[in-house]
Amino acid sequence: MRIEAIAIGTELLTTDRVDTNSVWLGQELASLGLAFTRKTAVGDDRDAMKALFCEALDRSDLILCTGGLGPTFDDFTKELWAEVLGATLEENAAAKANLLAFFESRGRTPSPSNFKQVLVPVGAEVLPNPIGTAPGLWWESPEGFPGRRIVLMPGVPAEMKRMWTEQVTPRLAPLAERPVKTLRVLVSGVPESVVDERTSAVRRKHAHLDWTILASLMQVELLVRGPESSALDAARRDLEAELGVDIARIGAGSLEEAVLDLLAEKGQTLALAESMTGGLLAARLTAIPGASRVLRGSAVVYTAEAKAALGGLEPAFLKDHGTVSEPTTRALAEAIRERLGATWGLAVTGNAGPGEDPAGPAPVGTTFLALAGPSGTVCQRPIQAGSRADMQLRAVMYGLDLVRRAALIR
Amino acid sequence: MRIEAIAIGTELLTTDRVDTNSVWLGQELASLGLAFTRKTAVGDDRDAMKALFCEALDRSDLILCTGGLGPTFDDFTKELWAEVLGATLEENAAAKANLLAFFESRGRTPSPSNFKQVLVPVGAEVLPNPIGTAPGLWWESPEGFPGRRIVLMPGVPAEMKRMWTEQVTPRLAPLAERPVKTLRVLVSGVPESVVDERTSAVRRKHAHLDWTILASLMQVELLVRGPESSALDAARRDLEAELGVDIARIGAGSLEEAVLDLLAEKGQTLALAESMTGGLLAARLTAIPGASRVLRGSAVVYTAEAKAALGGLEPAFLKDHGTVSEPTTRALAEAIRERLGATWGLAVTGNAGPGEDPAGPAPVGTTFLALAGPSGTVCQRPIQAGSRADMQLRAVMYGLDLVRRAALIR
Repeated sequence: MRIEAIAIGTELLTTDRVDTNSVWLGQELASLGLAFTRKTAVGDDRDAMKALFCEALDRSDLILCTGGLGPTFDDFTKELWAEVLGATLEENAAAKANLLAFFESRGRTPSPSNFKQVLVPVGAEVLPNPIGTAPGLWWESPEGFPGRRIVLMPGVPAEMKRMWTEQVTPRLAPLAERPVKTLRVLVSGVPESVVDERTSAVRRKHAHLDWTILASLMQVELLVRGPESSALDAARRDLEAELGVDIARIGAGSLEEAVLDLLAEKGQTLALAESMTGGLLAARLTAIPGASRVLRGSAVVYTAEAKAALGGLEPAFLKDHGTVSEPTTRALAEAIRERLGATWGLAVTGNAGPGEDPAGPAPVGTTFLALAGPSGTVCQRPIQAGSRADMQLRAVMYGLDLVRRAALIR
Repeated sequence: MRIEAIAIGTELLTTDRVDTNSVWLGQELASLGLAFTRKTAVGDDRDAMKALFCEALDRSDLILCTGGLGPTFDDFTKELWAEVLGATLEENAAAKANLLAFFESRGRTPSPSNFKQVLVPVGAEVLPNPIGTAPGLWWESPEGFPGRRIVLMPGVPAEMKRMWTEQVTPRLAPLAERPVKTLRVLVSGVPESVVDERTSAVRRKHAHLDWTILASLMQVELLVRGPESSALDAARRDLEAELGVDIARIGAGSLEEAVLDLLAEKGQTLALAESMTGGLLAARLTAIPGASRVLRGSAVVYTAEAKAALGGLEPAFLKDHGTVSEPTTRALAEAIRERLGATWGLAVTGNAGPGEDPAGPAPVGTTFLALAGPSGTVCQRPIQAGSRADMQLRAVMYGLDLVRRAALIR
């Protein structure tokens, strides 16, 4: 089956907006044993869009098109597909009811431009959008194009993903190839090249499986694909024997989820004092439903005043030890653990830059992480470089891995 | 000039790898007054690649192709372009000297597969790659395709960027159109459809300019492009007259930056108490260098204990008013403002779900935002729906807009 992605929007050609939709859809297709043969982005330009739609109809069996379904003047994906397929637009009662309900639930009134969103080409099926105003569309073997399937989805990622999961996947499942199963192993706190070396014998032993290794900050993901569960199970056992406690998670889920699940399972709680990470550790944990089982709270102590008022440090102590130092970080970890009555208190201080400020608290890249627990406090000082965002995120991942390894042996 | 991007690599179709090269190139073209008309990604598949190269030659004046120039079995971009253009490959002495020098400087020896990288199609010009083994190629009016320009660059972003800057930009500069200038207006706290309607007369009046409207949570971005600064200035004045205080920013920068700059300019500071947003407000502000000019700190009061210990609320008060309510949110805003000695104290409480918990503090979607300032405290309760991530982010943006509007009139 030849499948192609079309992303609509001038912003994808001229700004720093990235088409993340087709990346996500590519991974969804993989789980159905399917893959894109091509991905294209075009601007909000009628001629360019029409030419692309005609080509795609000619060469592909399934076309997944995102964007251009909104209410504004530069949204005309639906209208152009209707032209290409020779279909007229009619008001759709269900879509109109959805639109009115959407606005009513938010206490707002639709603008006149919203009503163009309830026009539907004859022959297309409406895909409801429960969290937005743009309905999707599904064509199966439209007149004159037998065997072709065309799916239009909104460009807003949350709306597209929900529509894909609830509406499109069930319609595509019968077309899926022989499903390929995936084993995912998340390793944290070990560099990619080390994981690569330590797993090379396992990969050779299970060479009939398809291996992918993907690295991101402080984490390495091993993806192993094959048709047989038993072969994947054997590979998993060999990886567990080789990697041991460096494995943060088997199966889906982030390092944040691994840490929350591990602490919840052990009945342990966590309190944070964040200077360098500025709330990012708390934000990444509270992005996960049920984080409050484990996370008591975080003091974002971005200034010396906050280190005193929220972190409980004496101004004299801060004066002696500075805002970025091992004693200050240890004291913050112990104070927040005590204040919030948590099993673990984790503190991060440092300087994520950019730019070297001679009056700054420490050279750019300096990072201290302290973890206070039932048996005392440890402090680490990883070596850091890169952009501000990289250093903040790496400090978050480093901190989570520190908690994970401590909780494992508690 | 019709310009298209082609990115080669199966990983772009099946993994979470994003084609960041064409995003970067799109912005580089914009600075030359040029723009892509289309971007395509294909896998390492000979037939799909050849078909795409032929199409591109047919429809585009300039083709920027990245990837597939490496030494391995799945790299054959150069060979296929040579086939399409009817050119034979010959060993290039300069490219060979470069390759040997590259390996010598690293104390390594090239593998046999590296030598395929020094074969160059007759008629193409070599673009040296000082930091990698894959040279680039430039064709200008290749035989049989007058007026066409084809550029092959490596897929490794650092190599591609250096080659673009040092080799490709000087060759393209004479072709640059009269540079196009962009006016960006960021509107916050107003829905897209309302901005669309309120600006329709301005857009009609300045219809000779190119208008784009981009919406994200709680924000709408207007991009106006044209060759003349004076025409953009006139459009800006009309937009300012129409949108007034709803404009958060003119020029580059996020709502977070707009709020930090506005407060810094007015010598005002901000303290946060975050329950529903769980640190996200602080994290998004501290992602910006210099946030400590304005942000004193944040108490992430994710549990009742934290609301008492960090937020300074009496347990009896919390018992009376609940963890999600107007009085609690107001009290948190006032307490954190006081504790951190800030001009503004912003508090957010709520329930971002998912799942309706009958024992939960409030129905999913409930959101309270309170802003305490020099003249008292205001509290708002926006209506919310969507995913947990959406609700948390919308609460962040709502909070920032609340601070922005209050600071504007202070």
